[in-house]
Order: sequence, then structure tokens, then C-alpha cells
Amino acid sequence: MPKLDLTQIEWLTGSGYPGKLARNGEGRSSQRLGDAGGLTQYGVNLVRLAPGAASSLRHYHMEQDEFVMVTEGICTLIDDDGDHAMQPGDCATFPAGDANGHHLVNKSDAPAAFLVVGTRTPTETGYYSDIDMMVKQDMNGFAFTRKDGSPLTADQIGDET
Amino acid sequence: MPKLDLTQIEWLTGSGYPGKLARNGEGRSSQRLGDAGGLTQYGVNLVRLAPGAASSLRHYHMEQDEFVMVTEGICTLIDDDGDHAMQPGDCATFPAGDANGHHLVNKSDAPAAFLVVGTRTPTETGYYSDIDMMVKQDMNGFAFTRKDGSPLTADQIGDET
Repeated sequence: MPKLDLTQIEWLTGSGYPGKLARNGEGRSSQRLGDAGGLTQYGVNLVRLAPGAASSLRHYHMEQDEFVMVTEGICTLIDDDGDHAMQPGDCATFPAGDANGHHLVNKSDAPAAFLVVGTRTPTETGYYSDIDMMVKQDMNGFAFTRKDGSPLTADQIGDET
Repeated sequence: MPKLDLTQIEWLTGSGYPGKLARNGEGRSSQRLGDAGGLTQYGVNLVRLAPGAASSLRHYHMEQDEFVMVTEGICTLIDDDGDHAMQPGDCATFPAGDANGHHLVNKSDAPAAFLVVGTRTPTETGYYSDIDMMVKQDMNGFAFTRKDGSPLTADQIGDET
């Protein structure tokens, strides 16, 4: 059945970021709509942000195109040029390799949500704009390091596991 | 600037279907949001349907994943299983190679719109469920034929050019 029953799709919480950086995921939940509907070539997620929550750490992708459309409330797109308020129906694009780090933050006092599309590629490298961290992804999973490839430090990620 | 100014993105009309089949495009207009924002790995279009209009002839893709989210009004998804009403926020997925032909039709008396995502692939084959037609796409463009590869007939496409 192509039409999705959104009431039956699990809401995921938490964060894949290491150590204390995982706190960035607080207040964010998401449904993997594309996965639920059998898509494999790109991911489509519906992401909800409680007041104060962020979509992610500010980042950009080297190999994967990204698209967002706000579907509820007000999201603030933060990129190298500052803050940009986005309301339902507003869209933004982040072409692969464009080194303009971005994330969406709910600076309002009401819930907000957006749809996000990202290409699935065999490998990927992402860079975080506000901290010395990068992520490399391949078939074995994700690896977070400093941008020179050296391990993240306790100062960056704390002693949390 | 990642945030798109939708008021500045051209609305396209018309149809790429041959001959009289192009009438299928009447009442439909679309904005190529992904192209406008520099995305190349998948297309993202916002499609408006006037009352009575259809997204396309009923079809399925062999190589490209497709995703839709209704953003305005009521769209009726028609597939092999019949009619499925979709309202704003409702989503549907059409994995590559799933031979369940589909299209969206505005059966209401008010405007409707949806967001659609489709992978960009070097080649593609599409099949039309209700008529004897297929389309093959490569770097040279599109070619419409009968499903056995023979030319479409005047009975199918008329004498219009």
C-alpha cells in the first residue's frame, strides 16, 4: 500500500553523536517515512522539534544532497549567513559539497516539524561547522573524529559513554 | 542562499507526452524546487492540480524511487487497489520496480498541491498502467513507444504534433 499510515510509523528519539554531544538530540524525534515505505535511494524523515530543540549539530554533506520543507510551526534555519525564519511550506536546499553548515532550530515556544530528504550513498563525509569534528560513513557505520582524523578529546565529548 | 524564494521559481505547464496524450497535462503546473536550489541527485517538484487535473498518466518507475506528500487540498491517489484520498501531510512511497501504477488526481472542486521527490538516474524505464505505452530515458532524452518497443499508433496519439 503506497499511502503511508503515519500513525503506525515509530517515532525515534536519541542521537548518534558521541558522548555529551548526544545531548544535542534532546527534544527531537523523527519518523523514517521513506524506510517505512520501502525506499532505498534516499531517506525521507519527518522531524519534530520541541521548543528549543535542534535538528542536528550545524553541518554540511560532501556527497549527499539535502532538502527540507517546514510542515508545522516555525523553524529557524541557521547557516553561515545567520538566521532565517521558515514557516510551513518554506523550503531549503543544501547541495552536496556546499560548505555552508546548517541546521534547523525551534526558537519558538510551540512545536515545529519539517520534512527532510537526503540521498543514500555508499560513503559520506560530513563536517561540523561550529566544532572540530567530522563524520565518515561507509558500509561499516559511522566514525566521528576531529577534522584531521585524530580522535575526539574528552574536552569535546566528556566521559559519558 | 539555501532557503528558496518560492515566489521567484517559475511555474511550468504543459506535458511531455506525445500527441493527444499531452492533454493529460491540462490543469497541472509545477515548480522545480530541487533544480532551483542546485540539487542534482534527485528532483523535488511542487505540483499544483486544478480541479479535475492529474499528476500524470498512471505509471510506475523501474529504476527511480518516488515519494509524495500532499501539501494543499485533497488529492486522490489512484493505484492498482483503487482510490485513496490524501489530505495535507499524507505521504505515499513508490519504490523503484514496484509494478503498482499510480497517479494523483484532484477530484475535488478546490485547488490541490503536493510535493514529489524522484531519484535522478542515468537511465530509466517507465510503464503506463492503463495504456500500451512505455518510456525509456537516457542522456539523449525520452522515447515513448508501445510496451513491445514498436511505435505508438495514430489511434493512441492522434495526428497532433
